Amino acid sequence: MKVVRTIGEMQRLTTRLRQEGSLGFVPTMGALHEGHLELVRAAKRRCDRVVVSVFVNPIQFGPKDDYHAYPRDFKRDRLLLARVATDVVFYPDVREMYPDDYATYVEVEGLTKYLCGRSRPGHFRGVTTVVTKLFNIVKPDVAVFGQKDAQQAFVIKRMVRDLNFPVDIVIVPTVREPDGLAMSSRNVYLTQEERRQATVLYQSLREGEAMIKSGERDARRVKQALRRLIRTAPLAQIDYVEIVDTSRLHPVKTIKGEVLIALAVYFGRARLIDNLIVRG
Amino acid sequence: MKVVRTIGEMQRLTTRLRQEGSLGFVPTMGALHEGHLELVRAAKRRCDRVVVSVFVNPIQFGPKDDYHAYPRDFKRDRLLLARVATDVVFYPDVREMYPDDYATYVEVEGLTKYLCGRSRPGHFRGVTTVVTKLFNIVKPDVAVFGQKDAQQAFVIKRMVRDLNFPVDIVIVPTVREPDGLAMSSRNVYLTQEERRQATVLYQSLREGEAMIKSGERDARRVKQALRRLIRTAPLAQIDYVEIVDTSRLHPVKTIKGEVLIALAVYFGRARLIDNLIVRG
Repeated sequence: MKVVRTIGEMQRLTTRLRQEGSLGFVPTMGALHEGHLELVRAAKRRCDRVVVSVFVNPIQFGPKDDYHAYPRDFKRDRLLLARVATDVVFYPDVREMYPDDYATYVEVEGLTKYLCGRSRPGHFRGVTTVVTKLFNIVKPDVAVFGQKDAQQAFVIKRMVRDLNFPVDIVIVPTVREPDGLAMSSRNVYLTQEERRQATVLYQSLREGEAMIKSGERDARRVKQALRRLIRTAPLAQIDYVEIVDTSRLHPVKTIKGEVLIALAVYFGRARLIDNLIVRG
Repeated sequence: MKVVRTIGEMQRLTTRLRQEGSLGFVPTMGALHEGHLELVRAAKRRCDRVVVSVFVNPIQFGPKDDYHAYPRDFKRDRLLLARVATDVVFYPDVREMYPDDYATYVEVEGLTKYLCGRSRPGHFRGVTTVVTKLFNIVKPDVAVFGQKDAQQAFVIKRMVRDLNFPVDIVIVPTVREPDGLAMSSRNVYLTQEERRQATVLYQSLREGEAMIKSGERDARRVKQALRRLIRTAPLAQIDYVEIVDTSRLHPVKTIKGEVLIALAVYFGRARLIDNLIVRG
C-alpha cells in the first residue's frame, strides 16, 4: 500500500493507474471505523484499484465545530486500510490542499437549505469544494460514500450530475453497532453514559418508520413522536428532527412517496446524525 | 470535423481521443472572429486534437445583459472552425447543459470583486461554472483563452490551480483590427459612427501605458487621463476605467511592478472591454 502526500504525485500516479484498470475512490477524514472499511470493500468489489484519501477538511467545519478536536490517528488508519487491501492512501497536508490565497468554492443550492445545511452554514460548500478537488486529483471512475451522511450523499450526487464529473457515485448502507447506533468517528467523544443513551436515536428512527408504515401521513405527528422518544434520554440535546422529500430535501407536511427521516442530536460535545429512508 | 450535441457522446469521444494523443480545448460562445481562430491555432500548435465548444452560456449573463440579443450563427462558426482544422465542435443545447433542477455553482472569490466582477454581479460565477462543466465533459490537456478577457483569464487560472484541474491554461494575446480595436463578437452591435469612435479605447490604453513607462506612478492621474481621452468620443459611456495589481486584481493607488489597465465602455448597446498589462 502506497502513501502519497502531494497532489502532483497523486495525479501522476492515478493517470498511470487508470491506464491499467478501473479506479475506485473513498474520501474520508480518517479516524476510521467499520463503516469506512465497508466503503473500501464496496469500492474494491467494483474496481481494480482503490484510492482512499485521509484528510480532515478544515473548510467544512464552522467556527464552533470540532475541527481541532476531530480525532486523528493516521498510524491506526493506515493499518486498517492495509488490512482491507487499499492500494493507495492519499494523505495531504492542509497547506498542500489550501494554499494561502485559496479562493475557489463549489456550492450546491437548494438541497443544502435544511437539515445539516441549516445547522452548519458553509458545511456543504466545504464538502463539495474538497470533493471537487479530490475528484480532480484522483480522477476515479467510481467514488463511494456512506448513507449515514444522507444529505451529503444527495448533495454529492447532484454536484456530480450538474458539473458533469465522469464519476459513478455509489452509496453504501449505514453500518451500525449491535445496539443500532450508527458508526461515526465522533462516537469516541461519548462518555459511557452518553454512549448508552445514544441508542435512542436509531430507536426513534425505527419508531418513525413504523408509524409511517402503519399509515401515519402527518409529518408533524411523526416528528413529535421522535422528539418525545429522544427526550427520554436526559443527556440528548436535539439539533433537528426533520422529514424531507428525497428530491429537494425540503421539509414535507404530508408524507407521500419516499421521505428521509433525519436527525442531529448532541450528546455532550458529540453531534451525532442518523437517518432512514422510508416509503410512505 | 465532427459536431457533437450531447454531453454523453462528447465524454465518450474525448475519452477515446485522449488515448490517441493530447487534447486541446477552446471554449467559445460562437459568433466567431479572428481572435477565436487564433485561440484554435494556438491549441493546434500544442495538441494532437482540438475540441471547440460553441455555447452561449445563459448563467454568465445578468438580467440586463444581452443574452437574447447575443449574436448566433452556427453555420458560419462551423465553416470558420473547419477552415482552421478543428477536430470536434461541441455544440450543446441549453437544456442539455442546465436541466430544470440545476443547482451547482463554482465561484472564485477576491479576484472577482472589481472590474467586470463589480459591473456584472454573478458573471464570473457563470463563467467558472460552465468552464468546470466543459472541462469535465471535454477532459482536455490544454485549454486556451484570450487575453482580451483579462479578468476571466486570471479567474480561470486561479480556479484551475485551486480545484486542481489537470489542465494547462494558455492565454493568447488580443487580436486587434488594423486601427487597434480589440476583436469582439459584440463589435457587430456597433453603428458605423460608434465603430469609428471606439478606436479611442485602445488609444487611451496606449496613452496610459506611455504615462507609466515615462515614470507616472499615481494611478489616479493615469485613470483621469484615460477618462479624459475616452470622453473625447461623444458616444462613449464609461462603465469603468481601472488599474489593478495582477495578483489580486484589486485597484492600486501607486503603480509599482506589474499592473493591469482595464476598461469597459458602452458604445450604444455594445459594452466593449479592453486591457493592457504594463510593468511600472
